[in-house]
Amino acid sequence: MTYLDHAATTPMLPRARDAYLEAATQIGNPSSLHASGRTARRRVEEARELIADRLGAAPSEVVFTGGGTESDNLALKGQFWARRDAEPSRTRILAAETEHHAVVDVVRWLVEHEGAEAIWLPVDHTGRLAEERVAEALEQHGDEIALATVMWANNEVGTVQPVVEIAAAAAAAGVPCHSDAVQAVAQLPVSFADTELTSLALTGHKLGGPAGVGALLLRRDAVCVPLLHGGGQEREVRSGTVDVAGIVSFAAAVDVSVTGQEETAKHLTKLRDDLIARVRAAIPDAVLNGDPDNRLPGNAHFSFPGCEGDALLMLLDAAGVECATGSACSAGVAQPSHVLLAMGHDERLARSSLRFTLGHTSTTADVDALIAALPGAVERARTAGLS
Amino acid sequence: MTYLDHAATTPMLPRARDAYLEAATQIGNPSSLHASGRTARRRVEEARELIADRLGAAPSEVVFTGGGTESDNLALKGQFWARRDAEPSRTRILAAETEHHAVVDVVRWLVEHEGAEAIWLPVDHTGRLAEERVAEALEQHGDEIALATVMWANNEVGTVQPVVEIAAAAAAAGVPCHSDAVQAVAQLPVSFADTELTSLALTGHKLGGPAGVGALLLRRDAVCVPLLHGGGQEREVRSGTVDVAGIVSFAAAVDVSVTGQEETAKHLTKLRDDLIARVRAAIPDAVLNGDPDNRLPGNAHFSFPGCEGDALLMLLDAAGVECATGSACSAGVAQPSHVLLAMGHDERLARSSLRFTLGHTSTTADVDALIAALPGAVERARTAGLS
Repeated sequence: MTYLDHAATTPMLPRARDAYLEAATQIGNPSSLHASGRTARRRVEEARELIADRLGAAPSEVVFTGGGTESDNLALKGQFWARRDAEPSRTRILAAETEHHAVVDVVRWLVEHEGAEAIWLPVDHTGRLAEERVAEALEQHGDEIALATVMWANNEVGTVQPVVEIAAAAAAAGVPCHSDAVQAVAQLPVSFADTELTSLALTGHKLGGPAGVGALLLRRDAVCVPLLHGGGQEREVRSGTVDVAGIVSFAAAVDVSVTGQEETAKHLTKLRDDLIARVRAAIPDAVLNGDPDNRLPGNAHFSFPGCEGDALLMLLDAAGVECATGSACSAGVAQPSHVLLAMGHDERLARSSLRFTLGHTSTTADVDALIAALPGAVERARTAGLS
Repeated sequence: MTYLDHAATTPMLPRARDAYLEAATQIGNPSSLHASGRTARRRVEEARELIADRLGAAPSEVVFTGGGTESDNLALKGQFWARRDAEPSRTRILAAETEHHAVVDVVRWLVEHEGAEAIWLPVDHTGRLAEERVAEALEQHGDEIALATVMWANNEVGTVQPVVEIAAAAAAAGVPCHSDAVQAVAQLPVSFADTELTSLALTGHKLGGPAGVGALLLRRDAVCVPLLHGGGQEREVRSGTVDVAGIVSFAAAVDVSVTGQEETAKHLTKLRDDLIARVRAAIPDAVLNGDPDNRLPGNAHFSFPGCEGDALLMLLDAAGVECATGSACSAGVAQPSHVLLAMGHDERLARSSLRFTLGHTSTTADVDALIAALPGAVERARTAGLS
């Protein structure tokens, strides 16, 4: 089987799996005062320090959560509520049109339910949000804006956003800025301290750690209403029993993947460029989507005119090649990708797209397998499309 | 080391650990459409069916979450918002005074932030909420009540509530009723179908499964606003990448622990009663808190007059015996337990309390170790208290 869907989830790294297993044989709730509890607490704090170090954050800025979606929800709802409580006139939220559903759907809910107003910032045909769009919105609506949010890199087409510049512009206007960096961490160099972001979301299972655990990097001076109330764990921002084994395993994965980021990126870029060249050679009218240069090293995203992406996915799957039509998080939903529509694709071309994503287990053999299966699948999908 | 803090967290069952490890070697996001994704989805659905079967629920009533705190937050905030949207006059929430912080702090937040009004229902000196108190409140405020919440069994003193009767009274008044059953599942017989509850919270790490994964049993006709928006997983009630390994492991733990509940309860009750008798013999003025009969099989909770609970905990810890002063979820907080205060304890007696909780690894040797260490620790703590 050829797995080209690492952006949906990537296999757990052996070190992360071993770390989970080892921690899962220990006992102790980190909130307990006895020796086992204190040992558990120490393991969590060591994991926090490791993650902080690898991502250019202070340990106290690492808030453990249940994953990327929770981190995004906490950052956006929590900071929106906090800002609105402090300054009720600040109701607007700036967001790129191509954000992940864990951001788009939160903003929509805040609009429908909590009196927010969204300002959806348009991207260009590569999916890039120009920092000028943000600057204009900040200038026009400065003191009505509660917060801004811009993903570090897009989960579908891989386009990398000018996050540093956008966060700086927001900070200059006194507006907190969040970034969903779920796809970026471990693929790109990410240092929280080198940005003026207020918060940044990451998750375990996209970088070789476990699912169900992630983090929100949150500046000490950020004001954020909790989403989960209870025992007051995690700076009182995120209550719930601290998942020691998950966190220790997550930290191991961050350590391995971020330390090896440069080398992995080099390897993936080479493999990805080879994949792109060979897809183009095999299917000359295939359209590469996203920024041709400034994209995630493991991402290749194509439209195949005349094909239904879903049909193509199933034909490739039958040939043992696994990929995605878009975000796994909206799989099964028969709607064209909001990302591609925002980039100016028409619905038909948007529906004809496939995403191939590479990761730490990918080899040339995976590309070979794709190239062997693709022409036949495209031909069949086109024939089906004509009938 | 003698571990008497199973209510804080209990060791992972070997079958749950093996299940995690096995699932963690697989790849695939259950939302992905390809073969690996479909296999992952099938594993999750099998886990859902297993949990549903063991807890008297329909598979479609099982919503996977990140744990008990999230389940409680989702049930209470989600149903409060949904009810308020439908009938703005329904703003009151009925809750027992002895609820867990994952309920108490949610209700308080809804009061402070979302315009709710709390009706805190008093318990008797055993910690029991009489169903008459609920009936009275329902009669007095019936059509102003958004929802009711009553824990199945108390996490500190172990008192079991008349949940079935209270849920029936709420249902008769058209009021949704939630129950935090985090401590009850696997210790007591729990069948969702045998109650008229609208929702019920449980979590993995209290029954031998992993931390960071839990479930909310939620009736199909319950209306619940999501807490986490995004990809629309879990009936659109709880978005976020589905944690296959965690869920498969959680299901294994539910299977083992719920199937063995009757036998475990017999074993724990015997051990617990022995522990209680021997503590009373060793420390004649020790006061057993909670309902003497209708309590969790693994729970013994005492006040030791003249001792500071924290000091006693540390002295026992130094002697290799691990226990708790109250909920691990509020450990480190220098406040007397709200549970004991609600039961009519004065602050001093509340502060002099220790909780001993037994679980699947507990043996007579654990009780022996406690009884060997306790008299010396109490004497020292009393001397310290006098100085």
